[in-house]
Formats: sequence, C-alpha cells, structure tokens
Amino acid sequence: SRELFVLTYGALVAQLCKDYEKDEDVNTCLDRMGYSIGVRLIDDFLARSAVKKCRSYSETTDMIAQVAFKMYLGVTPSVSCSSAAGNEFSLILDKNPLVDFVEELPAERASLCYCNLLCGVIRGALEMVHLAAEVTFLQDILKGDAVTEIGITFLRKAEDRKHKRN
Amino acid sequence: SRELFVLTYGALVAQLCKDYEKDEDVNTCLDRMGYSIGVRLIDDFLARSAVKKCRSYSETTDMIAQVAFKMYLGVTPSVSCSSAAGNEFSLILDKNPLVDFVEELPAERASLCYCNLLCGVIRGALEMVHLAAEVTFLQDILKGDAVTEIGITFLRKAEDRKHKRN
Repeated sequence: SRELFVLTYGALVAQLCKDYEKDEDVNTCLDRMGYSIGVRLIDDFLARSAVKKCRSYSETTDMIAQVAFKMYLGVTPSVSCSSAAGNEFSLILDKNPLVDFVEELPAERASLCYCNLLCGVIRGALEMVHLAAEVTFLQDILKGDAVTEIGITFLRKAEDRKHKRN
Repeated sequence: SRELFVLTYGALVAQLCKDYEKDEDVNTCLDRMGYSIGVRLIDDFLARSAVKKCRSYSETTDMIAQVAFKMYLGVTPSVSCSSAAGNEFSLILDKNPLVDFVEELPAERASLCYCNLLCGVIRGALEMVHLAAEVTFLQDILKGDAVTEIGITFLRKAEDRKHKRN
C-alpha cells in the first residue's frame, strides 16, 4: 500500500517549499535527493528483479517502465522513442500515483516539478549501471498537461562517438 | 516494495536535520508532519481494511498492529498492555523497516527520534476516530535498544472520568 509513501513524499516537498523560495531550487534539491536514492536503490532493484543485462537503450527504458515503475510505484508507464538517433525516450503516465493527494499546484509554485525526485532516482540508478542520462519532466498532469511524461536522454559515451567518427 | 519509501523517508529526515539544529525540533516537526498524514491516511485505511468499529483500546491497538502496520509497513508489531488501567499499550518491533538503510545515528544526533513521523501518524489517525492518545517512542533499535517500542496512551475522555466518579 503506497498511500503512506505518497503522503510522506508530499511532506518532503512541502518542507522544501518552506526551505527554498525559488521553484528551481526545490526542483534541484529533489533531483539531487533522488539521485542519492537511485544510487542506493539500484542494488535492491537488481537483486529483486533478477533482470539480465540490457543490450540497448530501448531495452533499458522498457525495463525501467515495466519492472522498476511497477515494483516501486505500482504503475507501468508506456514508452515511446522520440529521436531518430535512438537515445531519447519518454515514459508516459496516464495516472501518476505520486500526486494522488495533490489537487493542484499553488499559483506561486507554478514552476515546481513536484515529482522531480523520480528524475533523480532514474538518473542515479542508471549511472550505477554505467549509463549517463539526462532525465527531466516534459509534461506534467499537475501543470494541466493531459499526461505526465518523463524524458530520458541517454548520453552517448565519448568513446562511442570517437569510434563512430573513425 | 517499500525501499523507495524508506529511502525517501531518510531524505526527509536528513533535510529536517539540515533545517533544525536541535533534535527536539526535528522530532516535533516529524510528529507534526505525521499527524497531518494520519488525519488523511485514516480514510484510506478504513476504506481498504473494511474493519468494524473497535470496542476497546485493546482491540484498537491490535488493529493498528495487525492491520495498519501490516498494510503500510509490511510488518506486524507485537502488542503488550502496560498499565492496570488498560489504557497504555506498546507496539513492539523486532525489526523496523523504516531504518533498513540507517546504520546508526551520528553522535551529534543522539536525541533524534528518527521514526517520529509514525507517532504522529498514529496520533492523527486515532484522533479522526475520536480517540485522543499520546504516542511516543519508548525504545529504539537505533539508540542501542534491543527492540523498537512505540507507546500509546489513550487519554480517557473527560466525560468518562466524570461518569466513573459518580
């Protein structure tokens, strides 16, 4: 049952909003906290899921959506690939359990990425399996969008790029 | 899977420790946050558990231990009654899932009640079913005790007391 988690997360965001005047600072702080969590959560995830090594960015993203989100949040986002280069993906949530108890963002918090912790978690966990990525919210139900969309851009390694150029 | 919750809770406590120098202030803040959560969580609990009205403090405490703790934290504390008057109970946890990732309290945080949110949650939820109670940590594995013990003292209503006196 995740209600206690969802409400506790709300208390965390509320506290950060007390601590920081600027939404950007709250967003950064949530992302940083999430990163530290992801770095530790990955061990639990690998042990519990017993997944095999992913062979592509696409497979990795599917794993995050179908196994990790299901395991920790009880929902399965759909996945779409948004670049011809094959390194940009979106996780799309019709319903976001983390905002179950949030009606709307207050007017003075219009730039708040309420769930930004999740971006940090994904980024931190990916880094522990040697995948550098940028993770950000592209759409947010709380901001009036029809869905919540988390964008993951895998950053190709310098070596890969060099190899390809040659 | 509660690991994400446990790590997020850790981030909340860490943030409060940054915000407040005194352990007592962190404890108070966690209790207050927990209270607000309990006040909201009770609806979810009643809807989900479909429990009947409890007819005694003892039954209420059993319900918290066997249904609520199981539902939200995945563990079942044992219950003991610690007063002849029948209004003081203890929830005893051999293992506390909320501290899974905590090794020990830093020396300068010796008075921190790390899980104090739980006391507030219980207090808030009980208040919504018209039961006033004091809820505090009596023992804490994090402080070197063998078990974690949460004490619940139900405060008899003024009317009850008056009735008995007559």
